Amino acid sequence: MRAVYLEAGHVSVRDLPKPALPSGFARIRMLTAGICNTDLELQRGYYGFTGVPGHEFCGEVMEGPGAWIGHRVVGEINLGCGHCENCSQSMGRHCAERTVLGIIRHPGAFAETLMLPFENLRRVPDELSTEHAVFTEPVAAACEILDQVNIPQGEPVAVLGDGKLGLLIAQVLQAHGARVHQFGRHAAKLAISARAGVQTAPANSNLPCSEYRTVIDATGSASGLRQAVAMTKPRGTVVMKSTVHGEVALDFASVIVNEITLVGSRCGRFEPALELLRTGKVDVSRMIDSRFALADAPQAFKRAASKGVLKVLLLP
Amino acid sequence: MRAVYLEAGHVSVRDLPKPALPSGFARIRMLTAGICNTDLELQRGYYGFTGVPGHEFCGEVMEGPGAWIGHRVVGEINLGCGHCENCSQSMGRHCAERTVLGIIRHPGAFAETLMLPFENLRRVPDELSTEHAVFTEPVAAACEILDQVNIPQGEPVAVLGDGKLGLLIAQVLQAHGARVHQFGRHAAKLAISARAGVQTAPANSNLPCSEYRTVIDATGSASGLRQAVAMTKPRGTVVMKSTVHGEVALDFASVIVNEITLVGSRCGRFEPALELLRTGKVDVSRMIDSRFALADAPQAFKRAASKGVLKVLLLP
Repeated sequence: MRAVYLEAGHVSVRDLPKPALPSGFARIRMLTAGICNTDLELQRGYYGFTGVPGHEFCGEVMEGPGAWIGHRVVGEINLGCGHCENCSQSMGRHCAERTVLGIIRHPGAFAETLMLPFENLRRVPDELSTEHAVFTEPVAAACEILDQVNIPQGEPVAVLGDGKLGLLIAQVLQAHGARVHQFGRHAAKLAISARAGVQTAPANSNLPCSEYRTVIDATGSASGLRQAVAMTKPRGTVVMKSTVHGEVALDFASVIVNEITLVGSRCGRFEPALELLRTGKVDVSRMIDSRFALADAPQAFKRAASKGVLKVLLLP
Repeated sequence: MRAVYLEAGHVSVRDLPKPALPSGFARIRMLTAGICNTDLELQRGYYGFTGVPGHEFCGEVMEGPGAWIGHRVVGEINLGCGHCENCSQSMGRHCAERTVLGIIRHPGAFAETLMLPFENLRRVPDELSTEHAVFTEPVAAACEILDQVNIPQGEPVAVLGDGKLGLLIAQVLQAHGARVHQFGRHAAKLAISARAGVQTAPANSNLPCSEYRTVIDATGSASGLRQAVAMTKPRGTVVMKSTVHGEVALDFASVIVNEITLVGSRCGRFEPALELLRTGKVDVSRMIDSRFALADAPQAFKRAASKGVLKVLLLP
């Protein structure tokens, strides 16, 4: 089968043997996949990844037990061991032995077919297009904030950053009923949030100080995290939503004196994400930049890494 | 009146004029005061402090309105403006315009008399000795953890550090019903916690990894904070209880991937602290190192800054 292969920062397209299907797994024909910033980080050498990347996808079940054959699915990307303390408490996403689709020791979705355990699959509602369903995983990551932090209806919330995840977070929180103020550097991207009712402003040097009870840092930068702390009221919360690599120097004295809470936030449940996408409460149609065939994956990765580009999709 | 005076890192004893008493304030005769690490930090030049330090005290009301004259009191150290958003939400401890007894623009307790607004005062129960009442402020800071974080009865909780605050935190959490595991470098200090039923262990290089749902960092060091994060389970919480000065470099990627929450924690309510001290559930008798007269404050500060020394008290 045709598959994208990452090795030493180099993206190639290879014809790989189709692996045997383990018990309890489904083989899924990839219909559409999306390139995420994490894929670009894998390419840059984080996590020492070699293999088939890709974890945002919508596919069709081809093979495996159960009645889902022929149905369109998306899939939770973490594969827990199934019997540790975390797995037994529905926290398989934090299993220390987990593999992760296209990220940690499990071949990813940038291939003609991929494999996932049946319990990881979620059926895609008929009303939801395949291309929009590809956004389920990052929308779920945005929804995770609401599973971690109490944000009352009508409360002003700041989102810092207007990258792909920042745009989804702004829409998810706005759909939840918060009054989202998003700060970013790209007028065209902020316009996508503004259509959803989000109040947007340029992320210049005049950001509000000690103004919000909840600030979401989706900048992926050390300076963004420091800015998020400065924008937070005493006893307020900063949700750290995008990974900053390497060590970040932070003035913890101000975090302690102001009793600020910093919350690390990663993957989320797919159910609320599918519902937000199905109902159009989160509209991703303006976030698709371009589509490439798997065979053109090197160009697709190049495009995805270009400044200001939103979602690049891969088709089989 | 005789008072300790800090200026450019130098501790002296001066005879200062007794200031006029503002409306709504009580004048308090200092009975006993305690030297805190913050006082030593003021001496080292943090916060650019010049003036009379001291915020841990027990005194007797001498002058002012109300029926408290002659009663023993302790006092909350933050003086809010009284009319901002924080003050109107009972968060005067976070008022941006606040002064703080002996720390920020309000003369402190290392003097024959001090002044505080009546609303800051709490009466000391008759059963509680003056020397033990001096610990109310730091015990309240330890109690603040329980106002911020849910710690179920019987749950194992790690306390990192065996300084004065670490010892009080261990006792407060143990009294709350948690199973406290304290890690420190001083056998004699850990023995104080052990008497209260705390399980103690040396803070060597073999600290448990991803083991606790809640870890309290009371080390005051950057490496301690990093260690606390490493000891915390996925989705767990690190309470940052002691101030690390300057910027701390932290690997936020692990905080985000493991969805760890970092909670800044400072001052707390006096009521639960007074109750814990009154009932002896927190026993501070073994934490008193020595007593000095105000006139000998320079020697007292020197003693308090010596390695391994616990609470140094000042008497008028």
